[in-house]
Amino acid sequence: MATMAALFIKTPNPTPSFPRAQKTHFTPSINLSLSSVSKPRTHPRTRISCGLIDPDGGKLIELVVDESQKDIKKRQALSLPKIKLSTIDLQWVHVLSEGWASPLKGFMRESEFLQTLHFNSLRVEDGSFVNMSVPIVLAIDDSQKNQIGGSTSVALVDSKDNPVAVLSNIEIYKHNKEERIARTWGTTAPGLPYVEEAIANAGNWLIGGDLEVIEQIKYHDGLDRLRLSPAELREEFTRRGADAVFAFQLRNPVHNGHALLMTDTRRRLLEMGYKNPVLLLHPLGGYTKADDVPLTWRMKQHEKVLEDGVLDPETTVVSIFPSPMHYAGPTEVQWHAKARINAGANFYIVGRDPAGMSHPIEKRDLYDADHGKKVLSMAPGLERLNILPFKVAAYDKTQSKMAFFDPSRPQDFLFISGTKMRTLAKNKEDPPDGFMCPGGWEVLVEYYDSLAPTENGKVLEPVPA
Amino acid sequence: MATMAALFIKTPNPTPSFPRAQKTHFTPSINLSLSSVSKPRTHPRTRISCGLIDPDGGKLIELVVDESQKDIKKRQALSLPKIKLSTIDLQWVHVLSEGWASPLKGFMRESEFLQTLHFNSLRVEDGSFVNMSVPIVLAIDDSQKNQIGGSTSVALVDSKDNPVAVLSNIEIYKHNKEERIARTWGTTAPGLPYVEEAIANAGNWLIGGDLEVIEQIKYHDGLDRLRLSPAELREEFTRRGADAVFAFQLRNPVHNGHALLMTDTRRRLLEMGYKNPVLLLHPLGGYTKADDVPLTWRMKQHEKVLEDGVLDPETTVVSIFPSPMHYAGPTEVQWHAKARINAGANFYIVGRDPAGMSHPIEKRDLYDADHGKKVLSMAPGLERLNILPFKVAAYDKTQSKMAFFDPSRPQDFLFISGTKMRTLAKNKEDPPDGFMCPGGWEVLVEYYDSLAPTENGKVLEPVPA
Repeated sequence: MATMAALFIKTPNPTPSFPRAQKTHFTPSINLSLSSVSKPRTHPRTRISCGLIDPDGGKLIELVVDESQKDIKKRQALSLPKIKLSTIDLQWVHVLSEGWASPLKGFMRESEFLQTLHFNSLRVEDGSFVNMSVPIVLAIDDSQKNQIGGSTSVALVDSKDNPVAVLSNIEIYKHNKEERIARTWGTTAPGLPYVEEAIANAGNWLIGGDLEVIEQIKYHDGLDRLRLSPAELREEFTRRGADAVFAFQLRNPVHNGHALLMTDTRRRLLEMGYKNPVLLLHPLGGYTKADDVPLTWRMKQHEKVLEDGVLDPETTVVSIFPSPMHYAGPTEVQWHAKARINAGANFYIVGRDPAGMSHPIEKRDLYDADHGKKVLSMAPGLERLNILPFKVAAYDKTQSKMAFFDPSRPQDFLFISGTKMRTLAKNKEDPPDGFMCPGGWEVLVEYYDSLAPTENGKVLEPVPA
Repeated sequence: MATMAALFIKTPNPTPSFPRAQKTHFTPSINLSLSSVSKPRTHPRTRISCGLIDPDGGKLIELVVDESQKDIKKRQALSLPKIKLSTIDLQWVHVLSEGWASPLKGFMRESEFLQTLHFNSLRVEDGSFVNMSVPIVLAIDDSQKNQIGGSTSVALVDSKDNPVAVLSNIEIYKHNKEERIARTWGTTAPGLPYVEEAIANAGNWLIGGDLEVIEQIKYHDGLDRLRLSPAELREEFTRRGADAVFAFQLRNPVHNGHALLMTDTRRRLLEMGYKNPVLLLHPLGGYTKADDVPLTWRMKQHEKVLEDGVLDPETTVVSIFPSPMHYAGPTEVQWHAKARINAGANFYIVGRDPAGMSHPIEKRDLYDADHGKKVLSMAPGLERLNILPFKVAAYDKTQSKMAFFDPSRPQDFLFISGTKMRTLAKNKEDPPDGFMCPGGWEVLVEYYDSLAPTENGKVLEPVPA
């Protein structure tokens, strides 16, 4: 059965007689601001998401066991060899458990790992491909491997030894770190944040298998209600009568340039004939590098942006994407896009140098700024996703606001770099009027204020560009 | 239209009533030894290869201009900015010109380069994928780029400035060597032979475009008659009435273990119901590292092996594959396999650690010995190719010959390593009787004899394992 979304992709201009935005009966009347988006209580498995783009592999793979099985699974876990999960491992369990990586059913076995490294995609049963560009793997060391011995299942436990999940039909294979890093990042230079954090000191074996998660992963940080699963997001989009969902991945504060882009995207979708395009504003919630603005501060900032009316709460769903960040540029942006298909998005906004960073040891960007969008547009398994390239926004001095850069009058535009923005916020100076809503800016100033200077007097710098 | 080959793939056991080899009317009566295989004189474009597996993209892309256009193209070349080709560049021109890389029509533009690096495959017009795992690119430096200026075409010239080809509708883009190396080899360690030879000192730009080759590439080394193009090989297979073609890539001397494998493969194909499986014994003829046995010596050795009757000349075609060697393991083996589809092979024999080598700076193999065959069996675009994994052959002391290793009586087998073989040949000692045919062994001894010892008295060692 073709989904509505798929039909719309095939006929991108289905109703050209509706070129302008207008309220329709599909638009819910309730005002959904950030704080009012909360997790539905019904069980995800029972929900139907017809009308949205199909998840990869045809159905969402949710790996949390039924409530009735919880105690049995916990008892089973207690009888098995244990593997202690790092913070990042647990984030991947979270990712897998909710189906962001559908059709993956657990940590990758070698055949999946190799396909990811070489092809950025996995072949599924019908011979077609789904995208899968970053390895979702669990490393163990020699002693853990010995401890597992001939067991076909292991228990995954958290830092306090509480059982989190059972991994069964396990396969243990070599963790060639150098090859994994080279093929994922396109460099083996020292200083890649995820590598330093999660790979360099990890074990020399990887363990794959089928994952059964004992209960939903929670962080108890006051933000769990904003961590909607793909099934919950699909329910939310369906409830709002969305006929297009456009996702915006971010790990930085939102300024008015971003807001302009998102608003403009909605306008373009309405012009294409969609009646109710909904924005998924989807900050990344897993591991980020030390100089990025932490999740709690970003969420405060996003909340202010919605409160200040910069984005329309009626057509915006703010939720947290639980994945850790690789900073692997063109490779990683595919993961960011693919995961959003599983959450129901059929449009994906891609910016300049997505998931990029500076080269860790050379004075240049690690990736060509245009490769992300090019790779994304060609990636196997992402054919169903409409890629919307980012337009360049800058501060238009003649209008005193962020606007799309007009190359015919470059002198009128001011590019406010990440460094400039950080310097202003640190010095408690105001940015040009209209760069960011005042409430959002205050959060940023407050964040920098909260940072204790390091020994050499320098403050760690986030990179919001 | 489904090819015969494709039909056979779908019905792998079409005539189970013919389980044994028997001479049929498809087998030509002439005795085709190595020396009698010579290039047909008709023009490739006029040949029909129905019955064999289709080339990638549906048709073989041959890029040598018609005889009538030769002078015009040469004159055009003389008027264009010139790019001097290295030996390896010229080998790639050769590869492209004959359609080994079909459907590529020239050196890769950026979109092809990115797809190769990230996906090891190219999307073709109908949305399907063809395999393409190694970048076929041409590097230029800043001064060459400046010299090209706004020209949309360039002339490619050989070391004596003779025009070889015209590259038109050119696209110049950045050559990020680190990323290219990391994604192709899975390491950036110094000492990778192809990298040192062809990338490290190459320019920082790549130039792609449509290639028109002025005349067939010749090396005038006495071996040109053995360099059959894919079209010529297809004609040869058709002429012999081959109903299966199994390719064996090699860059080392053939010993009786290899011969056993090839003979056994033919036996298995006959058991599957094929009536006339033909072996393409296909030594790589392009760049190889300094310690490999040079092509001319290898061809002498292969000739002796056929003369000595170790392989059946009636069902064996020996030809030279013009590609340079990357030593990029699982990535490169895909290229080796894909190119043979274009030459008409529908079965590909894959060994342990294909295209592998020692890690350039660590004491281990660069690739997991099993990854090659695993990656090959999962690779996008190679679905039509039947992968035949190599069985392990060793010297069976009880039979005084090479035989498939029998794990139930390991004490009876002798593994003759590459090092052991080289030491024997260098010391002019004989290997165990039955390891290699005497004529072939003599060639190897003669080769080592011809090597002048280096200053420290050591002789460069080929790696024939």
